[in-house]
Formats: sequence, structure tokens, C-alpha cells
Amino acid sequence: MITNTINKTELQAQLLHKINNKTKPPGALGLLEEIALQVGLIQETTSPVISQPHIVVFAGDHGIAKTGLVNPYPQEVTAQMVLNFLNGGAAINVFCRQHNITLQVVDAGVNHELIPASTQLKVKGGEIFINAKMRYGTANYLEAPAMSEADAVASIEKGKAIVKTIADRGGNCIGFGEMGIGNTSAASLIMSAVTGTPVAACVGRGTGVNDEQLQTKIGTLEKVYALHQLHQLKDQPITLLSKVGGFEIAMMAGAYVQAAEQKMVIVVDGFIASAALLIAQQINPAVLTYCIFAHTSGEHGHEKMLQHLNAKALLHLGMRLGEGTGAALAIPLIQSAVNFLQEMASFESAGVSNKE
Amino acid sequence: MITNTINKTELQAQLLHKINNKTKPPGALGLLEEIALQVGLIQETTSPVISQPHIVVFAGDHGIAKTGLVNPYPQEVTAQMVLNFLNGGAAINVFCRQHNITLQVVDAGVNHELIPASTQLKVKGGEIFINAKMRYGTANYLEAPAMSEADAVASIEKGKAIVKTIADRGGNCIGFGEMGIGNTSAASLIMSAVTGTPVAACVGRGTGVNDEQLQTKIGTLEKVYALHQLHQLKDQPITLLSKVGGFEIAMMAGAYVQAAEQKMVIVVDGFIASAALLIAQQINPAVLTYCIFAHTSGEHGHEKMLQHLNAKALLHLGMRLGEGTGAALAIPLIQSAVNFLQEMASFESAGVSNKE
Repeated sequence: MITNTINKTELQAQLLHKINNKTKPPGALGLLEEIALQVGLIQETTSPVISQPHIVVFAGDHGIAKTGLVNPYPQEVTAQMVLNFLNGGAAINVFCRQHNITLQVVDAGVNHELIPASTQLKVKGGEIFINAKMRYGTANYLEAPAMSEADAVASIEKGKAIVKTIADRGGNCIGFGEMGIGNTSAASLIMSAVTGTPVAACVGRGTGVNDEQLQTKIGTLEKVYALHQLHQLKDQPITLLSKVGGFEIAMMAGAYVQAAEQKMVIVVDGFIASAALLIAQQINPAVLTYCIFAHTSGEHGHEKMLQHLNAKALLHLGMRLGEGTGAALAIPLIQSAVNFLQEMASFESAGVSNKE
Repeated sequence: MITNTINKTELQAQLLHKINNKTKPPGALGLLEEIALQVGLIQETTSPVISQPHIVVFAGDHGIAKTGLVNPYPQEVTAQMVLNFLNGGAAINVFCRQHNITLQVVDAGVNHELIPASTQLKVKGGEIFINAKMRYGTANYLEAPAMSEADAVASIEKGKAIVKTIADRGGNCIGFGEMGIGNTSAASLIMSAVTGTPVAACVGRGTGVNDEQLQTKIGTLEKVYALHQLHQLKDQPITLLSKVGGFEIAMMAGAYVQAAEQKMVIVVDGFIASAALLIAQQINPAVLTYCIFAHTSGEHGHEKMLQHLNAKALLHLGMRLGEGTGAALAIPLIQSAVNFLQEMASFESAGVSNKE
């Protein structure tokens, strides 16, 4: 351990030296310099590279969504949007195509028979569909736990396996997105339980909730919080997932844990992706070392969640779409950080005078 | 005029309809939706495209820099950095390569014989050098006006001609960068004169000024402000340029005016680029319609300047390098805005249910 610490300190000094000797005033590339340092430390080298960046979108349905109490869009939209992903027509498809990011779409628990009798296939546009369906949606947590603890654990394991495959094939940078009508509610409840923030302060408009619907959403989720005694589950990620989680959130939590295990650069998307990270960091706190926070989502509560994680986000575009769209737009900035470290001339090599 | 107004209103309605029918909740792509609308209005179409994006870096020297009163880096660095651009080793080269942006470097008035007897040539890395040298740097404005009014006008005309050539060849999106040791001082003085903000509140650290040097810089620039009676020049852009401007700033001002004339999408970089825009919008206030603000620079005063321009920046990365680096990193976001408008499926085409 002592050797490791010394090596890390030495590497950090070498990286800072390299960054500061580029032909620019010290610090002039702002956050990109912090990202370059972080990626170097993650990859344990002064010459990091981003290889085969991936976005994996986990999709799952939520029993609560059938009640209409928390979401104005019908539950069917989850499956419809997964098909939209597979046809290349969603925002995440557009951004991944633009930036040469490999997109994979995972059925974690959609309440629809999407593509039967196949475990993995390539579809239109080169996107890859992965069938990891746990169930046809979670149970309605107004009445019962969303899933069994065994299902929560199994979901985490499936998420790990998906990331392991990507890492084994050489991908070293990954972002996670999600699709699931009702999943801002699950994320709000997880945030409230883990951070101790009152439910009302965690709940936002999700996709298109108006003022009246927002009050109904808050009231409903306060009932759920009390029913499942969530205040007792701050440090019990598996039980918390089983009470109010979603299959896509559980799978994403496992995916984070595995990505850290593989020393990948992890690009954290918005509100729901950050809630899954709260679970993942309880399983392994070291996960945060590997995380770059893509953006501050327009979803109420995300900024507070980022503060809790002590995170500084790269983008602030007021986006609140999910699907990993914030992560996809942040990956080119991470690439820019790595590129300046690799490609810029130093004061010496360019023959540029440094400060007098 | 009435016809134009009606057409613009109709086009705006059509663009908003197209944006709102994409498979996402209304507004969920945040600022990207505003950019998509703006680019559509600029190009007068519901199907805008970004063609041959360019960054043009204007370089010039400032007489004041030889005194060492406002800058810790020696004046020679301007020429050294231009050579660094031409060798492909600067940050702007790295980011332009990454995003397939054509980079042109203009000698507007560098105090060095850079490349003699050639008006335009292609150099290493594909970057194009344009010799538009007005003089070997400006005069020291502690003693005399920086340039004649005739030189200010001629610089503006050269800037216009450079942009016209790019537009004639099909480029429809352009960002301007600069290089010039001492030019944050010129930009601060222009900002102070045009916005009425006291000099001390406009002056920042530029490239690597420490606390003591900052006080000297402020004191020096307050003297310059009084000497040239800048408070009287709020609405006299040519005289203001002649007193304290730089050739690169004057040329950039002309470039903005021409880019607006050509209905190009203009990507505004940081502090100095925004000061040049203050001049340009006095020449033609309509320029602002075409501007997308790339980032809030880490240079003190830039945020205040953006407020004065009523501008919302895309990026907030704490960068303060100039060279057009902020603009280069923002261009992919503008491309993303155009891409989602062009490529995303609508609720109808994807068979996705809209709100209940």
C-alpha cells in the first residue's frame, strides 16, 4: 500500500509537470486540466488514451407508473422508446453517431416482449440490443417492495457482466443512460434515503409533470417513504433497491461497480444515473475515483445530489432527458482533455518563452 | 419589412413545432433547443446544416507589452505562438483537429517577420496562414494612440475580406480567436469605455499576472483611460480602436460584421473576442442575432461583459486561454443542436405516445 501511495504521488507530480509545460499559462484550460489529471491517474500513465467509448442505456419499467400518480406519460413509452433507440431515432442515437460512441441498449426489465428468444443482437444503425430482462417491470411500491432482494442482487450482477464484456473488448470509457417511465420517482426516493434530504426536496418534474401533478407525485412518494421505512435504509443499498428501485437502476449500479473494478473512465449522466451511483458507492466507495460528472441536469434535485457527491459537472445546459445524453455530450470534452495532454507542444519543444 | 416579420414569425413557429415533436419531453434538451431555433432562424430554414466550420485566429502585438507593465510574458511570445499554431502544437490546433474545424491563422500585426513575401499559404498540419500584417505591433498607448483611424478602418476591411472568402467557399459557421501578448489590456479598456464599467472592474489577470502585477496593470490602464478620454468614446468604435485597440481586435471586429452580413453562425470565444464584438455591434447592432456565445471565460470581467451583451454561454469550464479554444469546444454542441433537429424521430414517425 505504501508503494502504491508513493507511486500515485509521483505520477500526479509527473502529470502536473506535463500539463503545466504545455504552451499555455498554468490553469488556462480550466476543468479540462483537472480531467486530464484524473484520467491519467485512473489509467496510471502520463499518456492516457480514450478507447472505444461506450454508452449503455438500461431500460426498465416501474409498477408505480401504471397508477399514473407520478408520471404524465403512459408506461408503454418505455418500450416505445427502446424501439426508437433500436431504430436510431432518439437523441442518444444522434449524439453517439456524432461522436463515434458505441451505443448499447439493455432491456433490464421492460414491461413488453421487445425482442423474443435472442440474447444479444445487432440492429439498425449498429446499436446493440442486450436482453437482460429480469421481469416485466417492478411491482408497485405503493403496495409491496419493487423487487426481491435476490432480484436486486441478480440485477447488479447482470450489470457487472455487461460492463466486463465491454472492458474485455478494449473499451476504457463508459457512460450509463436509462429509460423508464416513472424512474425519477425511484431516483428521488433513493436520493432521499441515502442523503437524508426530505422527499419533497428530492422530487422534480421528471418528464413533463405540471404543478398539480407535482404535488400528487410528492404526496405519493412521501407515502412510499413511510411505508418502506426508507430512513432506516441509508446504508443498506440492496434492501433500498428492493423496496423502491428499478431493474435499470440496480443494473446500472452494478455497471458502475464493475467499471471501477476495470479502471475505466466513468461518465456520469443526470439525475437517475447519479441515484444509481449513490447505490454503487455504498457497495464500493472507490467508484467515485473513476467518475467524471457529465452535466448538471435540469431535473430538480440533481444539483443537490452532485453537492452530496462533492462533484463538479462539466456541462450546464439545462438538459433533463436521460438516455445518457449528457454523458454523450461530455465525452468529447474528456477526449479534448486527453488530446491536449497528448498532442500539445511544450514550451521547450515549441521554442516558446515561459514567464519572465 | 412587414413580410419579413411575418415570415420570421411563421418560421419560428415551424421550428418550435419541429423541436417540440421530437421524441423527448418539451424543453428536455435545454439550451440545445434554443441553439437549434437560433440556427434555423439564422439560416432561414427548418432544416439547418453546419458546413465547413472555421476558426480564424487573429494575431497582433501591442506596444504597451514592451513596457512589461501589463504582462508577465514577453512580447516575443506572440510570434512564437503563431509559429506554434503553424506547426500544429497549440491547444487550438488540437481541438480543431479533433472536431474537423478548419483553422486559419492571420498575422494582423505581429512584431516579427513571420513568413515573408507570401500572402497566403498552407503549412504543416493543414492550417492556413494569412498575411494581413498592418504594422509591426501597435504604438504604446501610454504615449500615443495605438494606431491611426485609417489603420483601424483598414484593419476592419481586411477582417471583412477574410470572412468573405470563407463564406464564398461555403463555410457557414465561424469562430474567432486571437493571440497577442497584452491584448487583455486593450480588451479591458474597450469594455470599460463601451459598458461604462470602471477600469478596475474590467481588468483581470490575463496570462499569468500575480497580485502585485495586477495592481500595476490596473494603475497603468487607468492612466491610459484618462489620457485618451475614453469615457467620451462609448459610441465611437473607430476612434476607440485607434486609441487603445489592437490590429487583431480591429480585424476581428470587421470579421464579425462580415460574418453577420453573410448570415453565418458566429461562435463567440472569450474575453478579447467579446470585446471585439462590442466594437462590431456598434458598427452593426444586428451582428448579435448571429452570435452563439461559446463559454464564460475564467478571465475576470468576461461574465460582466456577457451580461452587458445579454448573452447565455454554452460552456463554463473556467478556461482562459484565448486562441478561439472556447469556440472550438462549443462547435460540436452547436452541431449536436442541428443534428437532433435533423435526425431525431418525431412522436408520430417513431410511434411513441405523447403525454396523456
